[in-house]
Amino acid sequence: MTLEQQGAMKTDLHHPTTDEIELTDVLHALSDPLRLELVRILDECGEERTCGTFDLPIAKSTATHHWRVLRECGVVASRTDGTRKYQRLRRADLDARFPGLLDTILAHR
Amino acid sequence: MTLEQQGAMKTDLHHPTTDEIELTDVLHALSDPLRLELVRILDECGEERTCGTFDLPIAKSTATHHWRVLRECGVVASRTDGTRKYQRLRRADLDARFPGLLDTILAHR
Repeated sequence: MTLEQQGAMKTDLHHPTTDEIELTDVLHALSDPLRLELVRILDECGEERTCGTFDLPIAKSTATHHWRVLRECGVVASRTDGTRKYQRLRRADLDARFPGLLDTILAHR
Repeated sequence: MTLEQQGAMKTDLHHPTTDEIELTDVLHALSDPLRLELVRILDECGEERTCGTFDLPIAKSTATHHWRVLRECGVVASRTDGTRKYQRLRRADLDARFPGLLDTILAHR
């Protein structure tokens, strides 16, 4: 388990370990245009971000669903701090599990 | 339009042109384990193959659904010849539209 994962697991939300991340789950998560855009934003940001700063044109419940899909397949790490929820791209874990995959997908539009 | 596409379009089935192929549609098509396996088989085969030779552990109607998803998003070209249906990976079109994407995905399991 990497330090990155240990940090993620301090929350009570389930996060798959690096070895548990499945290729088809990641492809499914990134196959939704909105989720792919969220991942692009997180990747450009380079650090964790609070959900409120994404300025999404969707209902909060819809956003919650998309963040859950991204977390459960291992693409993002989520944590809560009081009423704030933070999201972070699991870049190191994804690059370790599927070298080149995220870069290749994000290179295209 | 490439020669590859012109060949595909001799059938009455709809095939998107190379420019119409969408990244998220391709990711969705490959996010199903069975469809990803079909694409792996076609890629290793290197040429078109009749549907009957895939020895799938699924109902024919299910296979038909998966081939349709793969065709409609531009991953395979389908044609019928009498009672036979042929499938071919649109490798050149995919590589032209999203360089490196298919190779990177197929490199991982």
